[in-house]
Amino acid sequence: MAVPLLAATAFAADSIPADLRETALATFKALPSTTPAVANNPITPEKIALGKALFFDPRVSASGVVSCNSCHNLATGGDDNLETSIGHGWQKGPRNAPTVLNAIFNITQFWDGRAEDLKAQAKGPVQAGVEMANTPGQLVATLKSMPQYVGWFNAAFPGEADRVTFDNFAKAIEAFEATLVTPAPFDAFLNGDDAAMTSEQKQGLTLFMDKGCSSCHGGTNVGGEGYHPFGVVKKPNADILPEKDKGRFAVTHAAEDSYVFRAAPLRNVALTAPYFHSGKVRNLKQAVAIMGTTQLGEELKEEEVDLLVAFLNSLTGKLPEVAYPVLPAETATTPRPVSQILGK
Amino acid sequence: MAVPLLAATAFAADSIPADLRETALATFKALPSTTPAVANNPITPEKIALGKALFFDPRVSASGVVSCNSCHNLATGGDDNLETSIGHGWQKGPRNAPTVLNAIFNITQFWDGRAEDLKAQAKGPVQAGVEMANTPGQLVATLKSMPQYVGWFNAAFPGEADRVTFDNFAKAIEAFEATLVTPAPFDAFLNGDDAAMTSEQKQGLTLFMDKGCSSCHGGTNVGGEGYHPFGVVKKPNADILPEKDKGRFAVTHAAEDSYVFRAAPLRNVALTAPYFHSGKVRNLKQAVAIMGTTQLGEELKEEEVDLLVAFLNSLTGKLPEVAYPVLPAETATTPRPVSQILGK
Repeated sequence: MAVPLLAATAFAADSIPADLRETALATFKALPSTTPAVANNPITPEKIALGKALFFDPRVSASGVVSCNSCHNLATGGDDNLETSIGHGWQKGPRNAPTVLNAIFNITQFWDGRAEDLKAQAKGPVQAGVEMANTPGQLVATLKSMPQYVGWFNAAFPGEADRVTFDNFAKAIEAFEATLVTPAPFDAFLNGDDAAMTSEQKQGLTLFMDKGCSSCHGGTNVGGEGYHPFGVVKKPNADILPEKDKGRFAVTHAAEDSYVFRAAPLRNVALTAPYFHSGKVRNLKQAVAIMGTTQLGEELKEEEVDLLVAFLNSLTGKLPEVAYPVLPAETATTPRPVSQILGK
Repeated sequence: MAVPLLAATAFAADSIPADLRETALATFKALPSTTPAVANNPITPEKIALGKALFFDPRVSASGVVSCNSCHNLATGGDDNLETSIGHGWQKGPRNAPTVLNAIFNITQFWDGRAEDLKAQAKGPVQAGVEMANTPGQLVATLKSMPQYVGWFNAAFPGEADRVTFDNFAKAIEAFEATLVTPAPFDAFLNGDDAAMTSEQKQGLTLFMDKGCSSCHGGTNVGGEGYHPFGVVKKPNADILPEKDKGRFAVTHAAEDSYVFRAAPLRNVALTAPYFHSGKVRNLKQAVAIMGTTQLGEELKEEEVDLLVAFLNSLTGKLPEVAYPVLPAETATTPRPVSQILGK
């Protein structure tokens, strides 16, 4: 049994360049050890605590059933493992829910980049009829009806005249989300620990750069930094790339943005099946193979797919411990939950 | 301003019997400081940890959307603040979700006491078509598809031949739920701290016993220990006591059990609106007044209702900190979520 093992090790050592870390650092960046700063939203412990409460509170939805965590579940990779999410009235959303983990490092938010940051993003699902079906006015009335929430907003936004606002709701959630950073073996490797990644993972990293995957999936978030057509070389099947969802075209109305999406950030990708904006592919190997044909114009060999998946597994990180919040109690003036679908 | 304050204090002192604690201890029991023992289910740290994961895992439902915590949300008093819960396919359940907090102290589970303990209870929602719409076989297949879960079951149920079973799933959840004990100011008072309850709360406690409320709502859980007709003296309105739900009659088929329910345990009642099995009453004062007319045959004065509510507020306790779990990742063999309603 010793011979094949030694042979495999020898092969691995051969195919890993000596300057792998250096090369990788030209393309990727390790996660920071501190909460990243956020534009126009100074992060404070009070804001993080408020944001955590709001993130887990189902009463931000009209029905009192759907919270941010319903679709961006911190227990299951920061997403919901569904093709597309189920929201208000059991309606299905149009696209796969992206993970909230490390989302702070994305250049913009949503698959089409239509929100410039997480505070803009946080306002979307609250108002989407298929998600939370709420209104900013109703949300603020709900929050203001609970004195404990008012106190928390006062602590998080001192010195502001009007503290319990839809803007501040979104800023608090962004502050909490900025803490959802998950250092992984890949970061330990980038930071200098040779033993943090297996030799298979290192071969996969080498291949990931050699094949050109990293030209779209680079940076701190191994993706999430730019826009690219899905199907650069060859269009995927219509079930994976449905004809009617033209991606970023809906945002820019520029012909060249048809079927363009923000490159998926790949941290924790092993936890966030199913894949692509349509959520049609559950198997990570299959997703990698599809990327080969559609983006590289190349039928990847099974061994190559295995190595790439090994590398992707090194991106599975560790979430900071989150104490489940105890939320403010409702009062007589808290608006009642509305569970029916409006217009039905 | 000092005069009315002094007068109020004097009145309060007058109406609180000197032996209040002694009298109360003949009827109530303070929560224990350690996790209660459970019949046929020795509690271990491994079982608690597994049970916590299962409690928060939406993949125990057919859809992958509904977890135990969806309706028994630890963030909002161990229930969902809804009239009746919303489950699979956005269907509405038949009765208000009771709190899971301190549920371990109830004589039986469910409003009609049809489950003899929490491990029997835990099997109900999993299989109910309007809740999780799953089957034991599908659930066990889901759990067995994730090696990390198998490892956790092995650690929680060592020495058993078949460890990942529906029975053990239920036992692990019961073990976690046994830890959801919430000591309150009322317990501190029972344990000897005179300052733990306000004088208004002590007057309320006095009244609660004098009026006879404690004859149904006594013991460790201030209720949850016996069965009583809703409407002993006078039937409530049909919206509060819907004619077709005959309560415990459905369990025993005994004529005398028509409209009989297990007396609601009142710990954390201030957090668990709306009230009664029908969930039709959101206001705690109104709920207390209804109890007066239906159970005592007495129109309680507003001051009396206020004092009783003050006492009930002293039952709001503190949940032990729960770290939000990180759940095992799905694998290629994990059954796919089924979001549609069967037969539709």
